[in-house]
Amino acid sequence: MGALHEGHVSLMRHAAAENTDVFVTIYVNPTQFGLNEDLDSYPKTWDADMQLLEKLNGELASAGQGRVTAVFAPNTKTMYPTSPPDSSIPGVGSFIEMRPLGQLLEGASRPVFFRGVATVCMKLFNICAPDRVYFGQKDIQQTRIIKRLITDFHMDMELRIVPTSRESDGLALSSRNVYLGARRRKVGIVLNEALRKAELQYKNGMRLRNDVLWPAFDHGNMTLLEQEQMEPSKRAKFQVDYISLADPDTMDEIDVIDDSKGAILSGAVKMLPVEEPQEGEELGQLDANGQQVPVRLIDNTILAPMR
Amino acid sequence: MGALHEGHVSLMRHAAAENTDVFVTIYVNPTQFGLNEDLDSYPKTWDADMQLLEKLNGELASAGQGRVTAVFAPNTKTMYPTSPPDSSIPGVGSFIEMRPLGQLLEGASRPVFFRGVATVCMKLFNICAPDRVYFGQKDIQQTRIIKRLITDFHMDMELRIVPTSRESDGLALSSRNVYLGARRRKVGIVLNEALRKAELQYKNGMRLRNDVLWPAFDHGNMTLLEQEQMEPSKRAKFQVDYISLADPDTMDEIDVIDDSKGAILSGAVKMLPVEEPQEGEELGQLDANGQQVPVRLIDNTILAPMR
Repeated sequence: MGALHEGHVSLMRHAAAENTDVFVTIYVNPTQFGLNEDLDSYPKTWDADMQLLEKLNGELASAGQGRVTAVFAPNTKTMYPTSPPDSSIPGVGSFIEMRPLGQLLEGASRPVFFRGVATVCMKLFNICAPDRVYFGQKDIQQTRIIKRLITDFHMDMELRIVPTSRESDGLALSSRNVYLGARRRKVGIVLNEALRKAELQYKNGMRLRNDVLWPAFDHGNMTLLEQEQMEPSKRAKFQVDYISLADPDTMDEIDVIDDSKGAILSGAVKMLPVEEPQEGEELGQLDANGQQVPVRLIDNTILAPMR
Repeated sequence: MGALHEGHVSLMRHAAAENTDVFVTIYVNPTQFGLNEDLDSYPKTWDADMQLLEKLNGELASAGQGRVTAVFAPNTKTMYPTSPPDSSIPGVGSFIEMRPLGQLLEGASRPVFFRGVATVCMKLFNICAPDRVYFGQKDIQQTRIIKRLITDFHMDMELRIVPTSRESDGLALSSRNVYLGARRRKVGIVLNEALRKAELQYKNGMRLRNDVLWPAFDHGNMTLLEQEQMEPSKRAKFQVDYISLADPDTMDEIDVIDDSKGAILSGAVKMLPVEEPQEGEELGQLDANGQQVPVRLIDNTILAPMR
């Protein structure tokens, strides 16, 4: 989707380590944005993206590995040749739909998202015919959608999942982080902290849903309480959308973790626009109307099988 | 779908004339049958199918053309590896849906049909990786679904449409014709006759919907009237499901035929079980309960562009 950051670079480095030719696709896919979502304001940074790729290629050349040998940046008429892209439901066009996998978690708050992702990825895969495709663990449910796409439609390619790239304090990299601004950026770490608390429960031998999840919910609640007790001019409020403990293939919620399968811990929080912005305060990139953008952050950790 | 007849053989002959290796897929795909449709009773004639292929291959060998070099007859676990095939709506699983194309005409009376067809064909195409795929004109809307599948998902293959194979009186060959029996078989020609009357209007210069279609509806009505005036023990009644004049790409109904595009004339009739079957009367293949099977017949003719 462009707006390349170090997370994307990590995908490319992994790809270059295993392949001679790395194809990078850059396309902000309209069908994965709902009608009221941020398609128009999604960051587009073509020149910076190309500079980043050239810099990377310079490094890869001296490392004697594969290189980025093509950038595929199609227009929408190429990707949607018959009907204009449609984000309505049920919607006009040719779509791949995965039920219930595409409707859970991220799909619950973004009903067309995984339909758009699966559809555009099938097209990109058919056009580029890759041996291997690289996706970031950050979008864990997306990796499950792609895995299912490859399995169910017998696509002749391998899926590689690359660990999430993070800031030094643990915040997962995301193209949307530019919208956070300093105040929300600092509090945004709450999700990763919460997930790590739950992960610790698993590592300490807990297997029941509530035993694993309660410290995550507790941390979210406590952090929110702290913020609410601060002055409006200093605090950053948020809403927890979900904290999930799910089967690693189906993403169905589970009550008990099966040691032989492990689980996926994931969550989403919505960082609300800050109240009483101060003169000169760094608010992050604003929307076309000069307003703060609500920022939805997601993160996850894979609880690996124990046997 | 197996139950091979001369229509399928025609597909294979066309394929063998253009290719060295012809792959035949035989799979009765459950997801294209609705919950109340004839999946269980769909004819399965494996031994006869193989004999027919061997006979064909003998002929192709002496003709110095391509041959049938593989038959792909997968089981359902191969075709639906993650979830059991589901024919409900919205349904569980990974599906390709095309709207509105898949909901018109045949899709109107069979809501899951084209979802099942598009989904299974994508899988078969990915497994077999053909240069060219061959489909019969008989299932004209299916050919439009496949064309759209190839275009919209950038499948690297060509679609060939092979003219409908017919009995000497014009009845289109179909695996379901074995269910007709003699009495319904004779009346079943009404659909082809009706479409040819409309086609003649086009050839005679008519371009307006009603001018083209009225003789088709008239012929259907007159034929039904004739049957209704016969004794119940001799007649075969039917219902006209639709007679359509449609855009050749979108299958949307049209009011006027554009000379540069032409049109598709298509129809469906349901042949009802005959009344008062007579001792020794040839009723066609019966269902598992010894009952006559209602038989839905479809047919079409392409009105070619005039300039």
